[in-house]
Amino acid sequence: MELQHFLLNLIIVYASARLLGEAADRLGQPALLGELLAGVLIGGSLLGWAEATEPLRLLGDIGVMLLLFEIGLESDLQSFLRIGKTASLVATIGVAAPFALGYLLGLALHLSHLQSVFIGATLTATSIAVSARTLTELGRLKTAEGQIILGAAVIDDILGLIVLSVVISLATSGAVSWLEAGWTAGVAVALLAAAMLIGTRYAHRLSRLLSLMKARGGLIVAAVIFALTLGYLAGLLHIAPLLGAFAAGLVLARTEHQAHIGEAIKPVADVFVPIFFVLVGMAVDLRRLHPMETENWPALLLAGGLLAVAVAGKLASGLGVAGVKADRWLVGIGMLPRGEVGLIFAGTGLSQRIIGEGEYGAILLVVAFTTFLAPILLKWRCRHAGP
Amino acid sequence: MELQHFLLNLIIVYASARLLGEAADRLGQPALLGELLAGVLIGGSLLGWAEATEPLRLLGDIGVMLLLFEIGLESDLQSFLRIGKTASLVATIGVAAPFALGYLLGLALHLSHLQSVFIGATLTATSIAVSARTLTELGRLKTAEGQIILGAAVIDDILGLIVLSVVISLATSGAVSWLEAGWTAGVAVALLAAAMLIGTRYAHRLSRLLSLMKARGGLIVAAVIFALTLGYLAGLLHIAPLLGAFAAGLVLARTEHQAHIGEAIKPVADVFVPIFFVLVGMAVDLRRLHPMETENWPALLLAGGLLAVAVAGKLASGLGVAGVKADRWLVGIGMLPRGEVGLIFAGTGLSQRIIGEGEYGAILLVVAFTTFLAPILLKWRCRHAGP
Repeated sequence: MELQHFLLNLIIVYASARLLGEAADRLGQPALLGELLAGVLIGGSLLGWAEATEPLRLLGDIGVMLLLFEIGLESDLQSFLRIGKTASLVATIGVAAPFALGYLLGLALHLSHLQSVFIGATLTATSIAVSARTLTELGRLKTAEGQIILGAAVIDDILGLIVLSVVISLATSGAVSWLEAGWTAGVAVALLAAAMLIGTRYAHRLSRLLSLMKARGGLIVAAVIFALTLGYLAGLLHIAPLLGAFAAGLVLARTEHQAHIGEAIKPVADVFVPIFFVLVGMAVDLRRLHPMETENWPALLLAGGLLAVAVAGKLASGLGVAGVKADRWLVGIGMLPRGEVGLIFAGTGLSQRIIGEGEYGAILLVVAFTTFLAPILLKWRCRHAGP
Repeated sequence: MELQHFLLNLIIVYASARLLGEAADRLGQPALLGELLAGVLIGGSLLGWAEATEPLRLLGDIGVMLLLFEIGLESDLQSFLRIGKTASLVATIGVAAPFALGYLLGLALHLSHLQSVFIGATLTATSIAVSARTLTELGRLKTAEGQIILGAAVIDDILGLIVLSVVISLATSGAVSWLEAGWTAGVAVALLAAAMLIGTRYAHRLSRLLSLMKARGGLIVAAVIFALTLGYLAGLLHIAPLLGAFAAGLVLARTEHQAHIGEAIKPVADVFVPIFFVLVGMAVDLRRLHPMETENWPALLLAGGLLAVAVAGKLASGLGVAGVKADRWLVGIGMLPRGEVGLIFAGTGLSQRIIGEGEYGAILLVVAFTTFLAPILLKWRCRHAGP
């Protein structure tokens, strides 16, 4: 009966995603907005029709890796490296500004030093998946803005590693081990760069290896193996596995099989990816917003303040494009969505009793709000500032 | 770390399947033979590199459903119904002959009445997946023989329902409830037929519904939802979910979207299907063959006898094609492979202490042997008797 239970879960996830995704499309909104809403709707806090069981979550994780793999496959490494400096600047502002603003807000609301650091940290990590998919749907991924957002979100994840190290050492030992934080991040950067350099240099050998695949499905499975393997290696380095899959896509983009793989991976991604976004929606448990109810002024104040700070901080990151011909608002909006990482931070803080239910609810609100806001604003800005 | 563990498992499954699948292809054998071997190799009894965890098994189950969905999509319902009588005869002989022979063998080896019935029952169910995929790889699925094998394997599954009811009622109450067995099977047949008739009649409406899917990936996800839903309904009726997915394919084959869906489902199936066959290989735990070791004559005798009976009984089913222009050897060989159902039967018998480790080992040997033998013989027979 285990299979039956899983099938029912999967059918509900797919059907709701399809229904609301198509509805969003008709309303001129990105389909993923419908998928996110579908998740909130069928999740435990509203209808409770589906459960985020482990197999489903693993499928979603594979889904977001395939999404990033596909995006990498369609990216051009050269143009990607060209915007490297700009992307770094955008990422740095996009991490520093929300962190600083969140920290100051915490102190202003009389939270402790540690709590304030923690709340600042939860605001730092951009969720690459939401903006990347929206830009793909809008056909804007290959514009200067699209490449900058993508690059900045990648760097953002590595900066997030530093923030995480700092916060964890602060929470456990009370002091910051900058050496350790720097070392972790340095190793991650070095190994990611090495993988990409080696991959780029040996692209033609990889290409020959792929040409050996003769049996049906050989090429696509070989490509999936490559994406999963780099994702796994990234995970070993404590970087998000989806970044490894993205690097795999970048490398394979330089082989002669790029078009063929790209065509075959599309329907595979189409089947896996919606699961991820529905699960993101399901993670928005509206019951956790309970402490925000009327007459609980401190919690409301924190939630409103965090929202303002989270949006303002990431919009400020758009300033990083100075000197490059790109729309800074579009870039800032693209950096808005927060995701899992913020929720994982908040969950850790809650379980270690650094923050309370009220703070957790406020952070959940920020994640949900920025995730839903970004696709809508991206669409709007593209229409008004586009070529 | 759960994701990391799953990724590693998946990478090992894929990489070994790819490697040995390509090797089999080079040696002129069907690729699935390599995938089965890969499973035995990385499974617990040899290298122990991969585990048949629950998420992996669910992926494999989805895989075999997609395989049958794709096969249904490429089948022609008309020609399928035309061979219905022949397929029924083949299926009936293919269930009755191994059952009778197995039962008599059991009695001859001084096993009890119940044990003999049980052993006969484990030999009845043909595994549709192995032959169907081999015939697809050989490009022979649409020949008369291919359609007969496919049809007979479907009917086989429904006959298996009757056998299962009989054996269970015999094991629990000691008497056979023919009424209940007939009722279960009748309901299953009626509902499967109804689904297919309704589906066929309303194919054009379904087609219009599918045309509504505009967002990217809409059509393929809608098709997958349909396949999963019919699979789920089949499961509710205690028929194998893969038969429901097969029916879904048959229905969608009659819509104008057939070609489009077929093209998109191919890479999706390519990614899911190998997992199923590797898992079939992993289920062959060589350690269970232990009681077959030298000087254990009764166990060896049983194993050898069961093998002979299992092969002879299904080869006899080829006689059912009398009067139709088709190669009876090819049909008989196509009915050879036994799979999960036999192992589930045997596992139930072992846990209820109806049979012992020796009998279980003998049945496992039959499943493994027929599964590996069928693709090789099919390939050989196609070469020597084909057009």
